[in-house]
Amino acid sequence: MRYELYYWPGIQGRGEFVRLALEDAGADYVDVARRKGGMEKMMRLMQGRGVDIPSYAPPFLKAGRLVIGQTANILLYLGAHEYLAPKAEAGRLQVHMLQLTIADFVQETHDTHHPIASGLYYEDQKSEAKRYTAEFRKVRMPKYLGYFERILEKNGNWLVGSRASTADLSLFQMVDGLRYAFPNTMKRLERTHNRVAALHDRVAARPRIRAYLESDRRIPFNESGIFRHYPELDS
Amino acid sequence: MRYELYYWPGIQGRGEFVRLALEDAGADYVDVARRKGGMEKMMRLMQGRGVDIPSYAPPFLKAGRLVIGQTANILLYLGAHEYLAPKAEAGRLQVHMLQLTIADFVQETHDTHHPIASGLYYEDQKSEAKRYTAEFRKVRMPKYLGYFERILEKNGNWLVGSRASTADLSLFQMVDGLRYAFPNTMKRLERTHNRVAALHDRVAARPRIRAYLESDRRIPFNESGIFRHYPELDS
Repeated sequence: MRYELYYWPGIQGRGEFVRLALEDAGADYVDVARRKGGMEKMMRLMQGRGVDIPSYAPPFLKAGRLVIGQTANILLYLGAHEYLAPKAEAGRLQVHMLQLTIADFVQETHDTHHPIASGLYYEDQKSEAKRYTAEFRKVRMPKYLGYFERILEKNGNWLVGSRASTADLSLFQMVDGLRYAFPNTMKRLERTHNRVAALHDRVAARPRIRAYLESDRRIPFNESGIFRHYPELDS
Repeated sequence: MRYELYYWPGIQGRGEFVRLALEDAGADYVDVARRKGGMEKMMRLMQGRGVDIPSYAPPFLKAGRLVIGQTANILLYLGAHEYLAPKAEAGRLQVHMLQLTIADFVQETHDTHHPIASGLYYEDQKSEAKRYTAEFRKVRMPKYLGYFERILEKNGNWLVGSRASTADLSLFQMVDGLRYAFPNTMKRLERTHNRVAALHDRVAARPRIRAYLESDRRIPFNESGIFRHYPELDS
């Protein structure tokens, strides 16, 4: 089956967590909105035309007749169908729990540059962003990274079980993005979170992921996505 | 099986979405942290003692040997095991998609009083809260409520299929909480979102939910939870 991924073109954003899973699985997929006429197609699906229940927002994945919205939900589906998740219920619930914790971390990262409203420009909420990000760097980043560090300390190479799951791919993306957005803070934090850093490199070295990262399918980080490098927000 | 729910005592918070599902299912459960010695038990589990992978934060549910964290993940589990979700994959994915959209709505509601940091007092982020909430009332509330209104317009009495699911219970809780926190705004918005308002009343009238809401197991809304009534933030 050829999957259709629908996401804003031009940014990695939340769609990137889905792209990484599709790429690592070697799945056949089209990144619809990056093709000619794709944005119009995405808009029609968002308005619910021909869809039972449209997704609240991109990303969403079309898998045959299914239209699956919400990043973590898409990854739950891909985990089950592309063998990127444990087969037993206990393991699947653990992977999804971590996936949802990463989703919270993503949201908080987004809010570093948009603490007041996503509908306003960064420039219009810069002072609030500085205050938010100071707390984010001091309290939230160490708390989330420490959580994943302790899990890896207990479990070894991967977060759940003995094989990579969608949660590992997503944690790679978190580290990659945070390195881009907050290089100074990350340099400091990675010293005491070396297992999380090693997981990043382990994922990056997977043959299909490496090929993807070197391809032009990987959109470079930029200041329209979730991970933005504003030097005034870093330490 | 007797479920064990772990959540902060004294507030509805995110735990309430789980309580509503347990109550509606007529499930046997203990609200552990509200019992003597329960907080200590919760803290031990959060530190990971005797747990394979601890939850990042409450709520979490102990179901036999499973420890399931993240509200939407717990509801995914309860949906499957307590028949509060469709049996077919398509329906389950739709319910979970809506559940995750409600989780985003919950987070944004929380941020109305804590836009800068959950670790700081409301009093220390009051001016930012006013700015955040103005946008929340003007843009975000109508967008989320409009989304659910359109789904109900299409599907009828319930969000997915012909029976109530965990997503319906959670949308009830959203409306109930928003009525408490922003009574003026909700009075205005419910006029144009009458299907969402009717869903609230339909859920409240379910015999087990009605009995629960009248019991002392339902903690009243207060200014320590997610839905807080600060008149200066309402219209």
